[in-house]
This record gives sequence, C-alpha cells and structure tokens, in this order.
Amino acid sequence: MHAYRSHTCGALTSADVGQTVRLSGWVHRVRDHGGVLFIDLRDHYGITQVLADSDSPAFAEVEKLRSEWVVRIDGVVKARDASLVNPRLPTGEIEVYVRGLQVLGAAGELPLPVFGEPDYPEETRLAYRFLDLRREGLHGNMMLRSNVVRSMRQRMWDTGFTEFQTPIITASSPEGARDFLVPSRLHPGRFYALPQAPQQFKQLIMVAGFDRYFQIAPCFRDEDPRADRSPTDFYQLDVEMSFVTQDDVFAAMEPVMRGVFEEFGKGRTIDADWPRIPYAESLAKYGTDKPDLRCPLEMQDVSEHFRGSGFGIFARLLEQPGTEIRAIPAPTGGSRAFCDRMNAFAQKEGLPGMGYIFWRDEGGATVGAGPIAKNIGPERTEAIRQQLGLAAGDAAFFLGGAPASFEPVAAKARTEVGRELGLTDENRFAFAWIVDFPMYERDAETGAIDFSHNPFSMPQGGMEALAGDPLQVKGFQYDLACNGYEILSGAIRNHTPEIMFRAFEIAGYPAEEVEKRFGGMVKAFRFGAPPHGGCAAGIDRIVMLLADEANIRQVIMFPMTQRAEDLLLGAPSEPTAAQLRDLGLRVLPRDGA
Amino acid sequence: MHAYRSHTCGALTSADVGQTVRLSGWVHRVRDHGGVLFIDLRDHYGITQVLADSDSPAFAEVEKLRSEWVVRIDGVVKARDASLVNPRLPTGEIEVYVRGLQVLGAAGELPLPVFGEPDYPEETRLAYRFLDLRREGLHGNMMLRSNVVRSMRQRMWDTGFTEFQTPIITASSPEGARDFLVPSRLHPGRFYALPQAPQQFKQLIMVAGFDRYFQIAPCFRDEDPRADRSPTDFYQLDVEMSFVTQDDVFAAMEPVMRGVFEEFGKGRTIDADWPRIPYAESLAKYGTDKPDLRCPLEMQDVSEHFRGSGFGIFARLLEQPGTEIRAIPAPTGGSRAFCDRMNAFAQKEGLPGMGYIFWRDEGGATVGAGPIAKNIGPERTEAIRQQLGLAAGDAAFFLGGAPASFEPVAAKARTEVGRELGLTDENRFAFAWIVDFPMYERDAETGAIDFSHNPFSMPQGGMEALAGDPLQVKGFQYDLACNGYEILSGAIRNHTPEIMFRAFEIAGYPAEEVEKRFGGMVKAFRFGAPPHGGCAAGIDRIVMLLADEANIRQVIMFPMTQRAEDLLLGAPSEPTAAQLRDLGLRVLPRDGA
Repeated sequence: MHAYRSHTCGALTSADVGQTVRLSGWVHRVRDHGGVLFIDLRDHYGITQVLADSDSPAFAEVEKLRSEWVVRIDGVVKARDASLVNPRLPTGEIEVYVRGLQVLGAAGELPLPVFGEPDYPEETRLAYRFLDLRREGLHGNMMLRSNVVRSMRQRMWDTGFTEFQTPIITASSPEGARDFLVPSRLHPGRFYALPQAPQQFKQLIMVAGFDRYFQIAPCFRDEDPRADRSPTDFYQLDVEMSFVTQDDVFAAMEPVMRGVFEEFGKGRTIDADWPRIPYAESLAKYGTDKPDLRCPLEMQDVSEHFRGSGFGIFARLLEQPGTEIRAIPAPTGGSRAFCDRMNAFAQKEGLPGMGYIFWRDEGGATVGAGPIAKNIGPERTEAIRQQLGLAAGDAAFFLGGAPASFEPVAAKARTEVGRELGLTDENRFAFAWIVDFPMYERDAETGAIDFSHNPFSMPQGGMEALAGDPLQVKGFQYDLACNGYEILSGAIRNHTPEIMFRAFEIAGYPAEEVEKRFGGMVKAFRFGAPPHGGCAAGIDRIVMLLADEANIRQVIMFPMTQRAEDLLLGAPSEPTAAQLRDLGLRVLPRDGA
Repeated sequence: MHAYRSHTCGALTSADVGQTVRLSGWVHRVRDHGGVLFIDLRDHYGITQVLADSDSPAFAEVEKLRSEWVVRIDGVVKARDASLVNPRLPTGEIEVYVRGLQVLGAAGELPLPVFGEPDYPEETRLAYRFLDLRREGLHGNMMLRSNVVRSMRQRMWDTGFTEFQTPIITASSPEGARDFLVPSRLHPGRFYALPQAPQQFKQLIMVAGFDRYFQIAPCFRDEDPRADRSPTDFYQLDVEMSFVTQDDVFAAMEPVMRGVFEEFGKGRTIDADWPRIPYAESLAKYGTDKPDLRCPLEMQDVSEHFRGSGFGIFARLLEQPGTEIRAIPAPTGGSRAFCDRMNAFAQKEGLPGMGYIFWRDEGGATVGAGPIAKNIGPERTEAIRQQLGLAAGDAAFFLGGAPASFEPVAAKARTEVGRELGLTDENRFAFAWIVDFPMYERDAETGAIDFSHNPFSMPQGGMEALAGDPLQVKGFQYDLACNGYEILSGAIRNHTPEIMFRAFEIAGYPAEEVEKRFGGMVKAFRFGAPPHGGCAAGIDRIVMLLADEANIRQVIMFPMTQRAEDLLLGAPSEPTAAQLRDLGLRVLPRDGA
C-alpha cells in the first residue's frame, strides 16, 4: 500500500464499503460521542469522517489528536446509517473505522483556528497565512484565481495568441508611477528597475514581427498604501496585436472576458450587449469613465431650468463659465426621508449637499416638493420632471458646478440611489467599452497641456489632428468597465516616430527628452514598425469581482500588508554590511535616528 | 475590406487565384527582374511573393521599397507558372500582382540584415534585438520556447496540478546564492529580495493544504558572468506535492518530461528506460552526477592492477589513502594517434596527462602497447584488458589520484572518447534519475561537515540515520540528467522540526541560526505539516537542448549581456537624486573615481 494514502479524503463513496483504505490529512474537527471519537479528516480534495471506538487498536492514539494535526489512518470503509448520511459531502454516505494511526505532523496551540473560520485580525491571518489558507473561503479563492488564469491562457492560446515572458529585471518603464529599483552589483551605483508593465517589451515584440502576443504578466509599482490594491505588484493579462484596429482588439478580447465571466460567474448573468460609450458621454451620464451599468439611472444636464431661476445658488453658479447643473433621476425615490438620506450621503462624500425635488400626487396633480421646487417655481419644476420622465412618487437630485468638481460624487450618488431603490441587479455583470479618450488635458493649476492618459496611443486623425486644438484630439484608447470597475485598458499605439515626436511636443516634451526616455522604442520604430495595439486586463480585480471580495488580499496567495511588509517570512529586512558593500551603497541615517 | 489585411502572408494558395486580396508585412527581399519587381512579403505566418510591373499603378511606389519596410499591398492572386512553383513555401503556388501600396512603417539603413541571417557580433544583435528576432532562427526558437512552456503547463494541469503565483518581491531565500535586493521606500534602510526560487513558498503552499502545486517560476540570482547562463534570472517548472515519496515525484514528472521531449524533439529518439543511478555509482562510472548516457562507455576501478606495479607514478599514488586508478575503455580507439589526441585533450583540461594502453594483434596474440603497458608488463596489461572486456584494436585511458581531483576531467574525457569514436548517438535524448545524494560532505580545507546539496531534504532513515556517521547519510534527493545536463532537481523535504534542527546542527548551524534564517518555514512546520516533496526543472536548459543551442541568449526573448546589461533599453542606469533620497540611500564613490 502507498506510504500515505490509497485514496484522497474526497474520494470514498458507498461503492467502497468494505475496503481497507489508507487516508492522510488534517484533523479538521474532533467530536467525542460518548466513547466514540469522530474525526473529520480533511485534505485538499475533501473531508472524510473517520471514527474509532474503544475496540479500535488505535483508540488511545486517536484520543490524543488535536485540531490541524496531520495524520495517516488505516481503516475500513463502512456505510453510514441512512439517517446519518450527509448529502452535502461527496463522502457523506460512508465513514472509515480506524484500525491504525500515525501522526505525520503534530500541531501546537493554534493562533488561528481553521474549522468554522471565525473572524480574526488580519495581522494574525497574514502572520499565519499557511493556516488562513487552509480555511475553505481562502482556499477556494486561490483555486478560483488559478482556474481563472488557466482559463484566460487557454482562451488566448485557442485564438492564436502566443505567450512570451518579458524581463523582470530591466530598465525603468515609462508608465509614470514609481519604480522599484534594483541596485546592480556588477555596475555599482547603477540600478535596474522592475517593470511597471511590459509596455515597451510588448511593443518591441510586435516590431520584432510576432503577431499576437499575450502574457500573464507581473507588474511592479511602488505605491503608497491603499486598501484595495497591493502596495508592490499586480498581475495583468497583457495583450498586443499587429495590423489591427480598435475593433480587432475588441473582437479578440470580448469572447475571452465574456468566457471567463461565464465560466466562473457562478450563475450571475452576463450582459449580451457590451455598449461602446464615448468617454465624454460616460462622464455626462454616469459621472465616471467606469460606470456601473447595473444601475440603469442616467444623469441629464438640466442647466437650462436653473439659469436665471429663483434658486440662487445654482443660478449664480451658472454665470461662471464651464459650469453645469446635472440631475440624477430617482424613480420611486419620492420621499423626504430618502431624499434627506441621499443628501447626507453627498455630504459624507465631501459635497456641501445634494439638492432634490420629489414629486407627489396632490389631488390628481403631480406636484414637485422640497426647497428647490419652492425656489424655482412650478413651471420649471414641471419642465424638469418632463425632461427626466419622472412621475409622482419619484425624485431627482441635483449637482452643480464645474463637472470635474462634482462628477466623482455624482457617480457614487447615482449607484447609491440605484442600490437603495432596488433598481440595481446585483446578480449581473454589466460591461461597457469606454472609447474616445481625450489625448490631452489642461492642468487646472498651471494651464499647461499634458497627456491625459497614455502618451503612446495613436491620436485619432493622426498627424492632421495634432495640427488643431489639442484638447479636441481623441486617442484610439479604450477601457472595459464592469460593474463600476475598469477591468481592462488599452490602445492602438502610435507607431510612427514623426507623429510620436509631435504628440510629445504638444505635451511639452522636446525630442531630446523623448529620445532619452524612450530611446529603445523610438529606435525600433525607425526600422519597420507595424501598426499595432493591445490592452491589459487586471487579473486581481477580475478575480475580486468573481469571488465577490472587496479586499485584494483575499485573492492573493501571499500578500503583503498595506504597509508592504511580509509578516510571514519577514520582509523587508536589514541588509548585511557585506551586501551593501557589494552594491556600493550606504544607508542614510533616518531623521531623528 | 480590413484596414490592413484580408489574409496573412502564409495563407494564400491556388484556391485563392483570381481573388482581390490585401496583405501587410515586412519587405523580406526585393528582386528586380528587368522591369518586373518581385518582393517577398513576410509576416509572422509566412512569406508571399508579390510583384509589380510597369503596368501596375503602384509600380513607382514599389520601386522605392527597401528591406524591412512595413507595407500594405492590395492586389490580385495569380497562379505561378508550373515551372516557378516553390514547393517549400505553403504559398509557393501563387503570387500577388500589386495594384496598390501603402507604406505603414519605413526603415532606415539596417544595422543588422534580416534576410539571409548573416553572422553579426552579438553586441549588435542585442542592441537591435527587434531585428534579430525577425530572423527565422531566433523567431523559431522563441516560438519553440513558448510552445514548450505551454505544453508543460498543459501536462501539469492534465495530471491534477494547480498553478499558483508566489511573490517576486519578498524576503531573502535560503538557496545560498547571491540575492538581488530591492530597497524599500516605505521602510528606508530595509530591503526586499527577489526570490532565488519559490522554495519556501511552495513548501508553505503544501503546509497550507494544497496538494499538487506547480508554477512556471522566474528565479533570480545575482551571478557572476558565465557564458551558458543568464546573469540575472532563469525560469523553472517548479513543482511540489504532498503525501508523496520519491517514487511518486518520479511517476508524476517522467511523463511530463518525456512528453515534452517527444513533442518537440524533432524526431530524436527518447530512451524508453530511464535508469535510476545512485550518486556514488554515477561518479564512479561517469565521473559526474549528470552523465551523458548517449555515450555507452563506463569507467572502471583498475587500482588493483597498478598497486605495486612497475608504473611508478600510479603505484606511488595508490600508497596515499583515498586514491584510485580509473580506466576509461575505448573500443576501436587502439591507435597511437588517437591515444595521443586524447592525452592532449586531458592536458588542455588541466591534467598532467592521461595514460593509456592500446591493444593490437601481433601474430594472432592480443598485445598491449604504449608506455604504461611496457612498465606494468604483459600479465597486468592482460588482466586490465580482461576486466575491461577489450580486444585488439581497442584502447583504455587511465586517470589516478583522489577521485574528486580527476573525475571532472574523466567525465569530459569519457564523452570525448565516445564522440570521437562514433559511439555516441547524437540523435538521442538519454535520461537518468540520479538518486541517493549524500546529505553531507567534509570541507577539504577546514575538515568541517557541511550540507553537500539541499539542507531541506529529508535524510534517508530520518532521525536515526542522523545519529551515525554524517558522511554516510543519504538524502531523499534526486536529479534528472539528460545528455550530460542536469535538467531537473528535487527532494523529499524534511518537514519535521526536530529532524530539521538536528540536521542543521550536524552542519554547524545552531537552532537560533535556523530560526533566524528560516523562521517562517519552521513556524509553519509546527502547525501540522504534511510530508511533501517536489522538484524544479530548468526551462532555459530544456529549450536549449531541444533547439540544439549552446548560447542561452538564443532561447530568451530579451536577454541581458553576459555583463548583465540591457543594450536595447539601457539598464542598469544612474538613478535620480530624488529616487535615492526616497530610498534613503547614498551611492558610495567608486575606487579611483
């Protein structure tokens, strides 16, 4: 017989009754039923109930077992009484009577129980990650993540993409976040960087004549602590294609993303239609470029109704250029209590408040109520109602000012209203391609023109478009939004050196600077570069959506703390004097040290 | 029609004759046949011949094209004359008559031609890697590598393994080579390390209750320059399994490795039998723990024949303890010219020389010749011949001393003799599991006992074995050798804290030191660790074997130079003052600077 097991803990069924078997696993739970000891023996594959009574030669050994000990048992498979069958367990029809026992790995007092998965401080969970990972929830998340990645790979291979690994120890990448540096020993005083993304490499792969590349790529950014992202690295499904337009990238990625969500969405519906929404329209309707389309509410511009109206705050606001009043319709939200709750929500988010009108039936007439309605009078109130298509029992919320100042809160308020009113189908994945991102934006403080997103995107209209107003130039750049998150981002690249230099010049980067920063890529573009484009999908975020987890550490096997510390293996740590000497570095004394 | 292509450059056949098509690709070659311009248009998928004559509206444009320009052509598919069909090209039956042309990406004067693949200095090839990668040889190697990795993944998944990603920014790993360090910005003065291998993580994954793990894992070692390895990183197929013995690991890996070599071996034979050779036997027979079994020659101990013989050098050598005379038989090598050539080979490898005897037929008798035969006399010469099973026309070479002093050269001489005599089947992959590695060795200079290989291996015989002579203790540790290379290495791990502490104690590491260095893993082993083991297979080396390449940079997409420099993107480079300030580091002035 095998040294450790004839079967896994998830394998035995009533077909095995009578067999002598050997199982190994963890003691999940021990119960003492008056002289009969029941143990749930657990391994990766499942749980099998084993038992010993005082007739068993192993009884005394079994009595000593504690939670999470690793044991090997020899025993005989018995059918459970019909009344004791557990239909929720694949092994629920049987139990194993223990004849022999060997302890393979004892366990001390547990700092973190596995069985029952009680809540524990995250610090403890990270310091004893190997125990936390035994819990069903986290164990399942890790398997989900692995299966999602496998499925992505399979789908990419199946549609003619090839995976290539790009360097991890490399030069600084142009994404613009903070690099992790790696000091060179062979070249003291010089540093490598970990890639923020394989952006330059994947473009070079296209210039090198490979046609459809992908990679499950680790990306490194030295980020300041934030709850929903890793402070060190993340993984993306990185993709690039040659001789393609934006439509080709969408056509390649949509089945992959759809397939993954269908495969692992646990029955949640996936929208058949993935609309393409221009960036400007997305901001206008949803206040964000990553709209949650599960919420059906769309904002509307209602400025005209407030211009010169008796609601002084908005009327005066509108006298300033670049301002606007936007309405969030709230069907069925027409109660003062609800409106006040939403107003409080806006205040919590940092706005002075969110004005509202709610409509009620007064003797057969639909009448607007609330301070704004009072101030602007019944005609304007009615015009607003008509525009928004609302009725008695409904409400509308209003935000005013420069759109950039209220849109972030408006976006949250829109989804909050939808959720509160039960208009949002939580059991759904709603996707949209956001397109036509502007190439440039004006810095609010300095007034200077800078790239608004990716400087490597091809401007729509090419060189000609760059001759006009930069703020009107759109890029061949796109995101895929899902349920309020950006899960993919990409672009058709600017593969023409002349257009690239001109695009950078507009943003204030002289040619020397472009050569200095991106010399390798510019050099490559001078020796026969194909038109190309691609995208990158955020794997951590996708798994979070599928697993319905809000904490990124729930979908990473060995995550750092928010402060970028590894509590299990102890990192970062003090270097040795010899290491620093090898690298030609000195650590500066800390302030106050 | 699509913006860039209706077909790839590898798609058109005689079935498409008459069709209007659009192709995009690189100008591989231009030929001017007296007013008719022929262009080989190349993309990732193939080459299509396109042509234009003076009747073509695009003729003037076509005339301007140069090698490696990227162009789009519109044209009509025509059948080639039967006499001009190229059976070596999938598109060899047709050509495309150009009606329209658009230049998508021009190319300057090429620093490195693509067509014809002439030899160029490696420095140029690395600085213009994107051109080098367009060449058929390197292009094919990259596709091979990608397909090998894909196949490994598929085979692992198909046999119940799950891929998990382990951290890349982490703590120093215990492999003992030099770490790449990553300074922490959030914790100035402290450093992360890039993992030398996911050794600790994969063991923690087992302790966390996952059963069969694998990963295509990047590993980082700050190595000194050496021709056949990357100075920064390499990839391994990393594997770990719970509740297994050594046999289980072999049973899991043999089909994977065999399958990959069968799939990509281009018809070379793969041995059906993969022998298990104890480490000591491998050294005795082949002089190495990574024998090239394509060479059938086996060394033998012939000390007895030289003890007290007239060949003074060997006779005196044997009076010292721990010495031995080893013979390499050389069937059909019985000529003075061949023997002298092999002797010269040994001298080139650093030995004073390699003695030999060769046998010839003298009037029906088989007689040994050469200086050694003369010195030891006919009886001993004959006894050696009998032991080695040689005949007239054969030879034998002799090496003497402490085995460790001559075995490295003996190993090379054995394969050299085999190759020179045509005894080695170059068209074959010969595998062997090398088992029973010693746990400890004595340092030749200090006399101290230290681990000879992996300190985390389980000693055979467990705690009891550790009570005896350490030099007699074997580990459950193994390699897979193929054609003279170690392509996989692994072990059953020591998962018991007590045995681990004792094993380290023998090697001179007190418990505090073990806790300090490997505290995370020791902690994990105290909370229910399963018996586990695994291995790691070297992907770069496997691809080199399959591609028949001796230079590792031929199987990596963007390799560093031997001096660990990226000539394309420019790494390592000087950090900015701000970066150093953020990290709390100062670069020390260099000697003489």
